[in-house]
Amino acid sequence: MSDLRAPEHQVAGHRAAPNKLGPLVDGAGLFYKPLQALDRGEQELAFYTAFSAHPDVPPRIRDTFFPRFHGTRLLPTAASPGESHPHLVLDDLLDGLAAPSVTDIKIGACTWPPRAPEPYVTKCLAKDRGSTSVLLGFRVSGVMVSDASGAVWRPDRSELKGTDIPGVRRMLRRYVSSAGGDGGGEDCALAAAVYGGEGGVLAQLRELKAWFEVQTLFHFYSASVLLSYDANAVTAPGGAPRVKLVDFAHVVESEGVIDHNFLGGLCSLIKFIDDIVSSEKAPPVQV
Amino acid sequence: MSDLRAPEHQVAGHRAAPNKLGPLVDGAGLFYKPLQALDRGEQELAFYTAFSAHPDVPPRIRDTFFPRFHGTRLLPTAASPGESHPHLVLDDLLDGLAAPSVTDIKIGACTWPPRAPEPYVTKCLAKDRGSTSVLLGFRVSGVMVSDASGAVWRPDRSELKGTDIPGVRRMLRRYVSSAGGDGGGEDCALAAAVYGGEGGVLAQLRELKAWFEVQTLFHFYSASVLLSYDANAVTAPGGAPRVKLVDFAHVVESEGVIDHNFLGGLCSLIKFIDDIVSSEKAPPVQV
Repeated sequence: MSDLRAPEHQVAGHRAAPNKLGPLVDGAGLFYKPLQALDRGEQELAFYTAFSAHPDVPPRIRDTFFPRFHGTRLLPTAASPGESHPHLVLDDLLDGLAAPSVTDIKIGACTWPPRAPEPYVTKCLAKDRGSTSVLLGFRVSGVMVSDASGAVWRPDRSELKGTDIPGVRRMLRRYVSSAGGDGGGEDCALAAAVYGGEGGVLAQLRELKAWFEVQTLFHFYSASVLLSYDANAVTAPGGAPRVKLVDFAHVVESEGVIDHNFLGGLCSLIKFIDDIVSSEKAPPVQV
Repeated sequence: MSDLRAPEHQVAGHRAAPNKLGPLVDGAGLFYKPLQALDRGEQELAFYTAFSAHPDVPPRIRDTFFPRFHGTRLLPTAASPGESHPHLVLDDLLDGLAAPSVTDIKIGACTWPPRAPEPYVTKCLAKDRGSTSVLLGFRVSGVMVSDASGAVWRPDRSELKGTDIPGVRRMLRRYVSSAGGDGGGEDCALAAAVYGGEGGVLAQLRELKAWFEVQTLFHFYSASVLLSYDANAVTAPGGAPRVKLVDFAHVVESEGVIDHNFLGGLCSLIKFIDDIVSSEKAPPVQV
């Protein structure tokens, strides 16, 4: 327990601080996510509980694309000394990555569940229209790029918020470029290794897409795809990039209908990334 | 010219009336659609002009899924005697169908172009949330079912407006049922012939979907899929159901991004119809 600490490589979501709850990791493969306020924590817990045991979820989908759920745990928090708070215990998705490059991509043109309370719909709709969500079907909620030398590029949230479509393209190019520091460019040196190939991001996203074309269990409003890889290992055997879904506080049960909102955004992301890989195969052009 | 008349089998959109503009047909294969007010007519004309000549639109897609565009024509109108009004000249999509069964399905959870004026966004959003669009990714804007005996079932617009997800399922089941009259049921006798099979609705929608997964030319906000077949001919050679896109007054150019909103809705429609076909293959169950 003494090893619990705030994760170094969190790119989106609430962060732990002396007066704020935030996730913790134990350095041994587990991630502790405090249950959120306003019933969101309860909803996320309900999702993990239902999803983990659901007979209609293919084990391959659950194991490949979702963090494993290990129940809940009461933990003391820095936010309220002397008190404890329930946490979801999940796999630490970045465990074992020495030089992690991570991006959190919130999927869907619409991030509000249709039956959500009106003020919440209004707030989300404004964010969806003010970001690339409505235009692109997704938005980048966080990104950090490490390179083999240890240099890191990590734009702050205000920079991400104002990003337009060309800005998202630059970010997803930079995410697979070799120079991680602030002076880094867009050489896309790792595009083929990270995005392309048999175990690459595109192949994994297409497998996920095939499930979303038929699954009528859940609608994943406001969930993200979290991409990660280790710049030191991605070109070696066993270093395949990871593709995981995270953030399920706004998942709702389906009514016999596919999650067309998530699926549309996922298809848009696939085409967007595919265009980056294709442009790198072609002779260099001015972008 | 003397043969121009209001189409008998229009299921959605404005209808011609003594004081209202509406489409006309010539009975020889052409459909005349009056240019709409508020720049919508100009936008639809601009779309047809650009689309018809676009080198990146596969001819097979254009010929299979879109009405052919024959330019514009000034026609006198019953709405304003003595004046003439510009009309789009298009193929009459129901030409040659003796006992037409038709349904107009507006595709997309969102029917407003992202950069539309605020009052229009507000109006559309209310309709999208008040109908099945947000939940289902599409809504039924019109339906009529004819059977071989000449009986016709045609719910009025107020009935369509209040339809929920189970109501849409009933309509799409009834659309392929044999008894067209008001007493008609949901025997789904034509489900395999209309929806299934090699040239059926599902096969055609899947071909359309494959194009939407890659096309970054246009975003088809508020466009519809118009399904039609002839109850007398659908089981005979050459009687394949027709699948066409219509209503392009709110199409906008893409910004290098697929139309994830249309694609998501289309995938939802495919799964929804596929479930109807599958349930008819399985032993009968209570629906």
